[in-house]
Amino acid sequence: MNKEIPYKIYLEENEMPKQWYNVRADMKNKPAPILNPATMKPITVEELSPIFCEELAKQELDETTPYFDIPKEILDFYRMYRPSPLTRAYCLEKKLDTPAHIYYKFEGNNTSGSHKLNSAIAQAYYAKQQGLKGVTTETGAGQWGTALSMACSYFDLDCQVYMVKVSYEQKPFRREVMRTYGAKVTPSPSMNTSVGRKINEEFPGTTGSLGCAISEAVEAATAQEGYRYVLGSVLSQVLLHQTIIGLETKTALDKYGIKADMIIGCAGGGSNLGGLISPFAGEMLRGEAEYDIIAVEPASCPSLTRGRYAYDFCDTGKICPLAKMYTLGSSFIPSANHAGGLRYHGMSSIVSQLYDDGIISARSVEQTDVFKAAQTFAKVEGILPAPESSHAIKVAIDEALKCKETGEEKNIVFGLTGTGYFDMVAYQKFNDGEMSDYIPTDEEISKSLAALPKVEG
Amino acid sequence: MNKEIPYKIYLEENEMPKQWYNVRADMKNKPAPILNPATMKPITVEELSPIFCEELAKQELDETTPYFDIPKEILDFYRMYRPSPLTRAYCLEKKLDTPAHIYYKFEGNNTSGSHKLNSAIAQAYYAKQQGLKGVTTETGAGQWGTALSMACSYFDLDCQVYMVKVSYEQKPFRREVMRTYGAKVTPSPSMNTSVGRKINEEFPGTTGSLGCAISEAVEAATAQEGYRYVLGSVLSQVLLHQTIIGLETKTALDKYGIKADMIIGCAGGGSNLGGLISPFAGEMLRGEAEYDIIAVEPASCPSLTRGRYAYDFCDTGKICPLAKMYTLGSSFIPSANHAGGLRYHGMSSIVSQLYDDGIISARSVEQTDVFKAAQTFAKVEGILPAPESSHAIKVAIDEALKCKETGEEKNIVFGLTGTGYFDMVAYQKFNDGEMSDYIPTDEEISKSLAALPKVEG
Repeated sequence: MNKEIPYKIYLEENEMPKQWYNVRADMKNKPAPILNPATMKPITVEELSPIFCEELAKQELDETTPYFDIPKEILDFYRMYRPSPLTRAYCLEKKLDTPAHIYYKFEGNNTSGSHKLNSAIAQAYYAKQQGLKGVTTETGAGQWGTALSMACSYFDLDCQVYMVKVSYEQKPFRREVMRTYGAKVTPSPSMNTSVGRKINEEFPGTTGSLGCAISEAVEAATAQEGYRYVLGSVLSQVLLHQTIIGLETKTALDKYGIKADMIIGCAGGGSNLGGLISPFAGEMLRGEAEYDIIAVEPASCPSLTRGRYAYDFCDTGKICPLAKMYTLGSSFIPSANHAGGLRYHGMSSIVSQLYDDGIISARSVEQTDVFKAAQTFAKVEGILPAPESSHAIKVAIDEALKCKETGEEKNIVFGLTGTGYFDMVAYQKFNDGEMSDYIPTDEEISKSLAALPKVEG
Repeated sequence: MNKEIPYKIYLEENEMPKQWYNVRADMKNKPAPILNPATMKPITVEELSPIFCEELAKQELDETTPYFDIPKEILDFYRMYRPSPLTRAYCLEKKLDTPAHIYYKFEGNNTSGSHKLNSAIAQAYYAKQQGLKGVTTETGAGQWGTALSMACSYFDLDCQVYMVKVSYEQKPFRREVMRTYGAKVTPSPSMNTSVGRKINEEFPGTTGSLGCAISEAVEAATAQEGYRYVLGSVLSQVLLHQTIIGLETKTALDKYGIKADMIIGCAGGGSNLGGLISPFAGEMLRGEAEYDIIAVEPASCPSLTRGRYAYDFCDTGKICPLAKMYTLGSSFIPSANHAGGLRYHGMSSIVSQLYDDGIISARSVEQTDVFKAAQTFAKVEGILPAPESSHAIKVAIDEALKCKETGEEKNIVFGLTGTGYFDMVAYQKFNDGEMSDYIPTDEEISKSLAALPKVEG
């Protein structure tokens, strides 16, 4: 095939994926089972079901079914904002004067501003399907909360978001988007839950933390009849829903006979990265193709590049199940000067296992460089990227510049997970030359790793 | 033709328009000529050229050339974010339970968040072409300033934006987007210009106005070697560039054999509306088809529905040329409680003439209703619309509900000009139930109309 490649490759509706792909089915080394924190034994669907929707609990634990049909109602919703474009970055290539061909899969063309909506709509659907009244969740900066609000509004489900108090106050715009979609947004810690009241009593005037917001959301879900708790990253079910990104990318590349050489994605909890790379990793696992897959993480929160592969709590509050993952320890908190997302102490258990098996590699980058890359990209490609996504941009640019030296015409594909419209405080810091970098010391990391739970086996 | 209509109709790159359409060429009654404020005589390209780029001055005054080729460099840029989708609002139709088919042309999928980029890139291109160093402009809320910053950054032109001081301080995010694209953003009134210094002296502590920012931008353009002034709406050149919206819409509809019954757009200065409707109005002017074309304006700034068709200054500062248009008088200022854009006292001279000739009709709507319509739309269609665009949504919903009563299967097409991500202060007011409406009294309008300039003929 040798068709001329347009700036943006859109799939026709009938070319859109109708199933999610479960990469675990092709993994010889499965991710280690997640553990019930009460028993420290592998958790069952029954044990997960009081917290999660039943269908989602099943997806969470299913390591063998390779494909899950996407229900029609979800496909209908996907069609409002998907397929997302796979864009050939002609202008960036020209700017860098590189022989490389750069492509990016852009997930920001929806009001949540990111890929989060792909899983939010699925989780809301299964909750509705189960006859629930509503769901609870936590949100930090508000991307996930926004996506979930949109999804719940679509299915007429109640949506209760516990938003870290400091974000609630400093990011009123995100909060108002959620409220416009009908969500109840509560600053956390609140007086609604016993854990919130306790924290407010112990630490008067606290501005909250994600760990605390998770604890409140979980308590609120279990305390109310007909409610469950939902989560926007890390979990295998979320990664499964995000494979729509990778499947569309693969189909679009195939349509024009393009063989990717590198796939680059940013990694926080790992679900967007996992979703993007799953179909490609699957081909590698089945011995059908080779790719250079790179996970990019912030130097200030380097779970893959400097963490330990061990069982850890998924949340700071230590109430959620434990997963074996690359982790910095659940007590690790990135330096306050870290601007973007990707602040999670651990990494999706699927991504962790793929990394441990050498299917993917990882790289960490510093934030000033990330914002420089973001600005370069914004100026020529016309999209102001989210700081998270800009981690992938940074490495894509680095690799394209290497190609310039070697003369290689590599096909570089990266995931552009979202827009930075609600991150202008960070951009302002960058514009004012006030952005700084921070790399945690070995001592800091050793300290939080020392607190890892003891798990047999 | 009877193809199944997808949620989103995208054109292929080779189906994209390669020319802008100048509807004036098909108008029997041409818009009245714009006048030089110094001589009160029709202005010439030579007289316009010290302020505007030469090519743009020519486009401004050309009433006979039906099509202008879009230069390759602009087409290349358009390909980064165009074609924009024409979306079938299946979910909104279902929600309203209407037999009508609703389509919207969405211009918000770019970082400027609106259609403004369509003209910004053209104006920047012609400035570059002419060998200029840079351009100056004013911006209120910042949509136009953002678009121009992006365009100038792409062509490596200096961009100086005078931003109304109150917006500069209250909308820091927009300001930072512009700065990220390398624009110099100055709060107006500033101490950079003699008019700014004078106003600061006369009214210490003033928070500025659009009229004053225009005056500063024009002075800055003429005071600097190699600079020109550019404007984001009202002008016929801007409307010409915006016809890319209508031409794409027409091509997309034709591709699926859809005959629009109604075309609805919001109207502030009139350039987006004019761009959307031009190809359809052209067919009406040539006697080839009939459409019900509706301009929607805020009840708080009702230039078409309650203004007078007369010569007026295009700017509050009375330094720009005069145009014959539907106007409330250049001293008219919408009530402070008005949240969205569409605050312009007049209307594009092309739109004004089409309205006067009965080719289009007009309707005014109140802002609380507009935000209600915005929320309804956001909840089912997944896009949080700009308040401006929501004026068109309101009338599209009204018309779809009429179809429900009559059982008519009308094809309703409306322009969704942009997203509301930077308008959350207004949404917050709405969410808190604190939004109010204001309709100017006849006395208020008479008062500002009494100050219209006296022009012979």
